[in-house]
Amino acid sequence: MKLYGYYRSSTSYRLRIALELKGLAFENVPVNLLETEQKDDAFTSRNPFGSVPMLVADGRDRAQSMAQIEWLEEAYPEPPLIPSDLEDRYTVRELTYAIATELHAPLNLPVLKYLKNELGQSQDEIGVWYRHWLKRTLDPIEARLAQLGTDDFLMDAPGLFEVVLLPQVYNAQRFGYDFSESPHITAIEQACLALPAFQRAHPDNQIDNPERNPS
Amino acid sequence: MKLYGYYRSSTSYRLRIALELKGLAFENVPVNLLETEQKDDAFTSRNPFGSVPMLVADGRDRAQSMAQIEWLEEAYPEPPLIPSDLEDRYTVRELTYAIATELHAPLNLPVLKYLKNELGQSQDEIGVWYRHWLKRTLDPIEARLAQLGTDDFLMDAPGLFEVVLLPQVYNAQRFGYDFSESPHITAIEQACLALPAFQRAHPDNQIDNPERNPS
Repeated sequence: MKLYGYYRSSTSYRLRIALELKGLAFENVPVNLLETEQKDDAFTSRNPFGSVPMLVADGRDRAQSMAQIEWLEEAYPEPPLIPSDLEDRYTVRELTYAIATELHAPLNLPVLKYLKNELGQSQDEIGVWYRHWLKRTLDPIEARLAQLGTDDFLMDAPGLFEVVLLPQVYNAQRFGYDFSESPHITAIEQACLALPAFQRAHPDNQIDNPERNPS
Repeated sequence: MKLYGYYRSSTSYRLRIALELKGLAFENVPVNLLETEQKDDAFTSRNPFGSVPMLVADGRDRAQSMAQIEWLEEAYPEPPLIPSDLEDRYTVRELTYAIATELHAPLNLPVLKYLKNELGQSQDEIGVWYRHWLKRTLDPIEARLAQLGTDDFLMDAPGLFEVVLLPQVYNAQRFGYDFSESPHITAIEQACLALPAFQRAHPDNQIDNPERNPS
């Protein structure tokens, strides 16, 4: 498999975690979003969305991270990222898709660029926007986790929810989000970061991270 | 089952279509988003996200539309909304989640309110924003549909993709989006609107649509 991605892209980070948890070998192919390489014809002819991650697996160019992960789960069921019990599956997907559908897009680079370039928003104003949407989704997730009484992972082992949560927490920290009222989210994050799969997938450890390879 | 929703909410409309296609009986409970009833304590104590649709089924208050639909598909497999073949499942989810994860949130009411109230954007400027994000996701979906050579539905019968596409097309039309370069999307829309399940689920036919019940 090949994963076309960018070290700091939250959706690329999702895929790295999922592949690591599944124990699947993959080649990481950096795509520099700051130089908009994902909009080059050579890339969009394979992925018309012009976005990362693109997962090349079983001879197919796959373009959307949540569809990629649901496919990985079905093509490579072990170890599972989604539990087998019907209601547990709902629990995991509710919290996962809250992040993927409500939170991801407003915080993603194309929207932030629009705010800056088309709407003339300052970096401070963009920070206010960013933290506004974080709080709006992370607070109810925290409330649900408290109702469920989780101590570390949402289920017995890290899975789909942690795959999607950790990259969002990483980006939230870059934007100075205050996690002091999110003890359950913080506990999950800490439990994940102790695991080699999450460490290998982390942006700090990617070949295209310039801070890892100062020129 | 009870579906707490709003006639013009695209995610509520998704659930109405899914339930109709499954042939499942449900009670429609209107929640007036314009009067922010979804933020009342009585509602948020059951759904901390403070959003519609909320699907009450098998004794549980379910809060996120994509998780609700994936649950419906597993709890009530017939007729299927997602095909059985692994690669067909990926095809359906790629296009579905493009809308659900990239397009839905920037066009949703909370973001539009933020643009108006916090960023002082005019209705015209909000229209430009709205159509910008539509084009950015609908164009690649149209390209993928052309690659796949679909004539009407994405698969043999309407399913997950159509469930999510139709509400987005409906809202796009309200914002004056030009579908003249989207022949495949238009063909799918027309094929769906000819079916009773889609007609019953349509915003025009909901009890809380004021134009249906002028006072």
